[in-house]
Amino acid sequence: MKILSAGVIIIGDEVLSGRTKDTNSNFIAKKLIESGIKLEQIIVIKDDEKLIINTVNDFKQKFSYVFTTGGIGPTHDDITSKSISKAFKKKYVYNKEAYKILENYYSKNNFNEGRKKMARMPEGVKLIHNPLTFAPGYQIENVFVLPGVPAIMEKMFFNVLDKIQKGFSKKIITVNTNLFESIIALDLEKIQKKYKKCSIGSYPYFYFDKKKGGVNIVISSWEMENIQEVVDEIKNMIRLKGGKISLV
Amino acid sequence: MKILSAGVIIIGDEVLSGRTKDTNSNFIAKKLIESGIKLEQIIVIKDDEKLIINTVNDFKQKFSYVFTTGGIGPTHDDITSKSISKAFKKKYVYNKEAYKILENYYSKNNFNEGRKKMARMPEGVKLIHNPLTFAPGYQIENVFVLPGVPAIMEKMFFNVLDKIQKGFSKKIITVNTNLFESIIALDLEKIQKKYKKCSIGSYPYFYFDKKKGGVNIVISSWEMENIQEVVDEIKNMIRLKGGKISLV
Repeated sequence: MKILSAGVIIIGDEVLSGRTKDTNSNFIAKKLIESGIKLEQIIVIKDDEKLIINTVNDFKQKFSYVFTTGGIGPTHDDITSKSISKAFKKKYVYNKEAYKILENYYSKNNFNEGRKKMARMPEGVKLIHNPLTFAPGYQIENVFVLPGVPAIMEKMFFNVLDKIQKGFSKKIITVNTNLFESIIALDLEKIQKKYKKCSIGSYPYFYFDKKKGGVNIVISSWEMENIQEVVDEIKNMIRLKGGKISLV
Repeated sequence: MKILSAGVIIIGDEVLSGRTKDTNSNFIAKKLIESGIKLEQIIVIKDDEKLIINTVNDFKQKFSYVFTTGGIGPTHDDITSKSISKAFKKKYVYNKEAYKILENYYSKNNFNEGRKKMARMPEGVKLIHNPLTFAPGYQIENVFVLPGVPAIMEKMFFNVLDKIQKGFSKKIITVNTNLFESIIALDLEKIQKKYKKCSIGSYPYFYFDKKKGGVNIVISSWEMENIQEVVDEIKNMIRLKGGKISLV
């Protein structure tokens, strides 16, 4: 069984300076896991041509799908499309279809140079419809190029999902306990060693004000048909340690 | 003038699966810029030994400082410290000081194997104090190893800031206008070309319900003594285009 994989490239100085909180990667991560696609890596890089070229070339080799967000607007600091043209050794041209969409949307009189720039893309791409502000994104091979504004990106991502292959769903069950992580650490490791095709994640949390805490244990697998056996073993272990159990 | 740079490595399957929203990178980004350190890259990777080793080795060469979060807890999926030991070709040992801190905190009877694991680190590190749950982080050369739980990481980051060199502050002024981005795109590009040591970022926003929008123009520089000249030129340009101006 081949597992579909993905990488996300967030392009934007504003995320690195802390000015903007990136919410796009979390949105994409959730949609991908629902679609049975394994997100392998997220990277945040500057608006820098060489860096965009190298990162896109690296990611498109490594992963089934690559998603970029940011840098496809009308201003001088929007250099994603030019850089991606270079990464794919394609000409950076006016896409006729995108040009028409934008000309219609803005009307001929208001279709200025900045707006025209949003129709410039690598040669031969497939457009991704933008239902909000109409400037389209596009697909080039296994790379999907999307805007950075979350409200727009999110709407467009539903159109992306129509274009990609879906994988087998990941099986995920979360068990919550009031026991501290360190109490169950050794037993959890034993169970993990027994079930190698299943991933057991342990995520502690603390309420410092109430001096309380606990652990969410996330049992998940792309490959196993059924993970209930692993879940039951973990629940038994927690009971033996005197812990409470709740399913999340 | 040497600009201090930094990279952030977020280690954790839970961020890639979308289960956890990473807030650590934004917190660190803001603290770094306040400290005059330029955050160059953020990467989110899986709990995978090879990947951690390669990423840490890559980042510690590229940047003045590297910050990792996640994977230093008591369970089997916490493999950051072991991996970092390998990256630095150091033994993975019980740190005596960390061992004592934890033994004191938990009392001898409750100091179980899982908790002892949190004292295992690469040989010869400097500890970073954890005022909340006491399991320390550490510094090895230019790499700072921190936990993933935001409340704990954030408290510890203030102790990290005491240990690092501060850079020259970045000058930042944001100008807001009600004009659309495309209207000012060409002029903004001209101003950017004139002032190459200054970075002019253009960040549009939209209120789709009100059919309104605008742009935040962020003028910033690590190198220029004074960016007011650039700001004034942008404000004049906006006025000439009939736009409103507000400072943010």
